[in-house]
Amino acid sequence: MSELLSPDQLEAALRAMGARLYHDQHPFHKLLHSGRLDRGQVQAWALNRFEYQRCIPLKDAAILARMEDPALRRIWRQRIIDHDGSHDGEGGIARWLHLTDALGLDREMVTSGRALLPGTRFAVHAYIEFVRDRSLLEAIASSLTELFAPTIISHRMAGMLAHYDFISKEALAYFDYRLTEAPRDSAFALDYVKQHADTVEKQQQVLAALHFKCGVLWSQLDALHFAYVEPGVRWPDAFDPATQGGAV
Amino acid sequence: MSELLSPDQLEAALRAMGARLYHDQHPFHKLLHSGRLDRGQVQAWALNRFEYQRCIPLKDAAILARMEDPALRRIWRQRIIDHDGSHDGEGGIARWLHLTDALGLDREMVTSGRALLPGTRFAVHAYIEFVRDRSLLEAIASSLTELFAPTIISHRMAGMLAHYDFISKEALAYFDYRLTEAPRDSAFALDYVKQHADTVEKQQQVLAALHFKCGVLWSQLDALHFAYVEPGVRWPDAFDPATQGGAV
Repeated sequence: MSELLSPDQLEAALRAMGARLYHDQHPFHKLLHSGRLDRGQVQAWALNRFEYQRCIPLKDAAILARMEDPALRRIWRQRIIDHDGSHDGEGGIARWLHLTDALGLDREMVTSGRALLPGTRFAVHAYIEFVRDRSLLEAIASSLTELFAPTIISHRMAGMLAHYDFISKEALAYFDYRLTEAPRDSAFALDYVKQHADTVEKQQQVLAALHFKCGVLWSQLDALHFAYVEPGVRWPDAFDPATQGGAV
Repeated sequence: MSELLSPDQLEAALRAMGARLYHDQHPFHKLLHSGRLDRGQVQAWALNRFEYQRCIPLKDAAILARMEDPALRRIWRQRIIDHDGSHDGEGGIARWLHLTDALGLDREMVTSGRALLPGTRFAVHAYIEFVRDRSLLEAIASSLTELFAPTIISHRMAGMLAHYDFISKEALAYFDYRLTEAPRDSAFALDYVKQHADTVEKQQQVLAALHFKCGVLWSQLDALHFAYVEPGVRWPDAFDPATQGGAV
């Protein structure tokens, strides 16, 4: 890309990248949504994905800490409020723990992170480092995977409820909330990016930020699929569905 | 672990961890060393591993930047000299590029990093962040995987030379050097750790640092194995052995 795109062309380029690289294209998600995973594999997904959920407010706080404009901060802080809630047991992180509880996972094992796959941890932390190190524009652009979230969430909820008798609608409450939160958040971030990426260089940075973030999500599923589906080679200290335990 | 170990007990605990978690236990290495990979898979390994090689001096410089003691810095700087050499074409990084050249990989694709697996990048960068963020003792302890390097390198050189007609002894010169450098480096780091980890907490930190680093190495092989061996699901922009290309 060497010519300046119009804001709408930039949006189209971002959406085309998502169509190609968003993790709804990953075979693990197809297995998850179509009921072809067993309970242990769904547990492994929920346990590892908790690391991502746990770090979302840390990531958003790192972005917030770089926003000079109070008006911008007022909007962005809502993401932290959504995930942390107003008291114990509220918010997106707590709702994710309802899911891991419903799946029968030991709460301490989940929250301690001791049974995680290394690849999960590295991908999630790369995301936090990215928003700390790069420009504010790139940090905001890296959130744009949320543009593609509502579709995958709808598929996931319908598919998981239809196929897994160990999953209830209550256990999936996290996703219910995300169906309204994600479009609001991504609409703001997309507008910001379209308005502020006003040079070729900034547009390239924005596209690279989305590329990076697609890799963060994709490689988490690589790690899960490799360890729990095929070939099923597991880091020795990772969650073991047979014993329901991990490293001590 | 809740009791203080003697220095020799600490060494034994570190070696036991390596026996369990070092990446010589990973199936990808068994395939690599026993000749069961094809040229494209060996290329993918060399290309992705270059990201690790490239970052070693950045990691060591980050450690150097935290050493207050000139005597310590004089010793540690040798690692950077080993990898960077004294002029273009010398040193460990250049020797790794001789290997990727010998394998027929496009030099620009290798050095640009554009065809890497996301998991490679995240694991390597987690290592750099670790040595920046943690105590000097933990940073030094994270280098202790080198204790286990000579054995794997000997197996690798013998196995690759015996099984792959596209690999020559010259192409593996990197490993020849490492056979003398790694024992010198790890002997120093082990002595340092045994001397300075003088509380239970520090010994736990040292063991956790080696645990972390084993995960860094292990998850790089997870990513390779997943994308290029089984099930062979590749991040769309990663190196493609069929076309010999990656993302542009």
